[in-house]
Amino acid sequence: MERHHFEEELQALKNRLLTMGALVEERVHQAVRSLIDRRQEEAEEVIASDKEVNDLQIDIDDRCLKLLATQTPLAGDLRLITAAMKINADLERIGDQAVNIAENVIKLLPQPPLKPLIDIPRMAEAAQAMTRDALDAFVKKDAAMARGVLKRDDEVDALKDAVFRELLTYMMADPGTIQRALALILISRNIERIADHATNIAEDVIFIAEAKDVRHHAELQEPKP
Amino acid sequence: MERHHFEEELQALKNRLLTMGALVEERVHQAVRSLIDRRQEEAEEVIASDKEVNDLQIDIDDRCLKLLATQTPLAGDLRLITAAMKINADLERIGDQAVNIAENVIKLLPQPPLKPLIDIPRMAEAAQAMTRDALDAFVKKDAAMARGVLKRDDEVDALKDAVFRELLTYMMADPGTIQRALALILISRNIERIADHATNIAEDVIFIAEAKDVRHHAELQEPKP
Repeated sequence: MERHHFEEELQALKNRLLTMGALVEERVHQAVRSLIDRRQEEAEEVIASDKEVNDLQIDIDDRCLKLLATQTPLAGDLRLITAAMKINADLERIGDQAVNIAENVIKLLPQPPLKPLIDIPRMAEAAQAMTRDALDAFVKKDAAMARGVLKRDDEVDALKDAVFRELLTYMMADPGTIQRALALILISRNIERIADHATNIAEDVIFIAEAKDVRHHAELQEPKP
Repeated sequence: MERHHFEEELQALKNRLLTMGALVEERVHQAVRSLIDRRQEEAEEVIASDKEVNDLQIDIDDRCLKLLATQTPLAGDLRLITAAMKINADLERIGDQAVNIAENVIKLLPQPPLKPLIDIPRMAEAAQAMTRDALDAFVKKDAAMARGVLKRDDEVDALKDAVFRELLTYMMADPGTIQRALALILISRNIERIADHATNIAEDVIFIAEAKDVRHHAELQEPKP
């Protein structure tokens, strides 16, 4: 493969990853909105449309393997392509979490609302923004932007703990709320996992941008002033 | 790199993955035992020893990148090396789940036991066996063995549902059990995620053994008679 053609193929790969990212983000958005608006059909749509995400994942993986097979990529391209394979897997699993949220919503909807939802939509908003920024950082090879994503994971964790504590008080006060509170706790864990996947993507971006492995090296995650 | 040397390096890579697998399996075993034996120090050890797993993950990733960089591998080797990178990530996340289990155990231990634990140890046993067999299938390139792992994921899901239903009845009957029951539900979800990672590994093995993508194609998971 000529270098010029190779560059085109790399660009096409990045575009497909962005498409995949937009697709799973829309699924997450739709799953959370089905909870807020209490719309069962919308939750069912999320579950039914999983195939599109899966087909795109296989297509992206194939592109990566072809790029690796047709020439020996330079060190930087090699890191980029193998990171793309990992990012692809993380995006697909974000899609799985949208399905899990939708399934929990369907369990929840037959019962009356437990409480106005505030922290869960906020968590979802944060996790979606993290995913978007992690992918944006990937395309721009922007390590600083990726570090911003890592930081926001703590915010999502704090919201998750707040959701847990609040729902616990509901359950303790009235056992009639237990099933609904549990479904909401599980939804908050699904959202937490989306933020975890965004964090994985951000770590891969820092790895390709700086060719050093920040995973598990807290001291490397923030450049010294 | 000569072919002979390349083969040696591939073998070394497989051995490192097996070491990584044995290490995270031991962590999971230790985390679950700290729950059953109610030993806080053992749970703390699991949390403290995460670094060993993380160092090994970085070492394995480096080996994969070097193998990809030093020569254009043949199609089969290419699939094997990229699968090894994915399997490595799944193993590391199994290690993360052992840490999550240990953290939930530490929350649980100050309170008296809620009930004798039966299904959770059984779930953990199944998830560990799935991880072991998925890795074994990887080393032997044994697609049939990997398919056996996929089947057993349903068993773990059924146990997870049984755990959830049983703990729900405890919570409904006595709000004083809610916190402990919740911790046990979260532990069962941690174990479910271990089984999910084993399933991911098994899918990668079928992909490298048969060079077709079984992910998301239920009809391909079982060969026609």
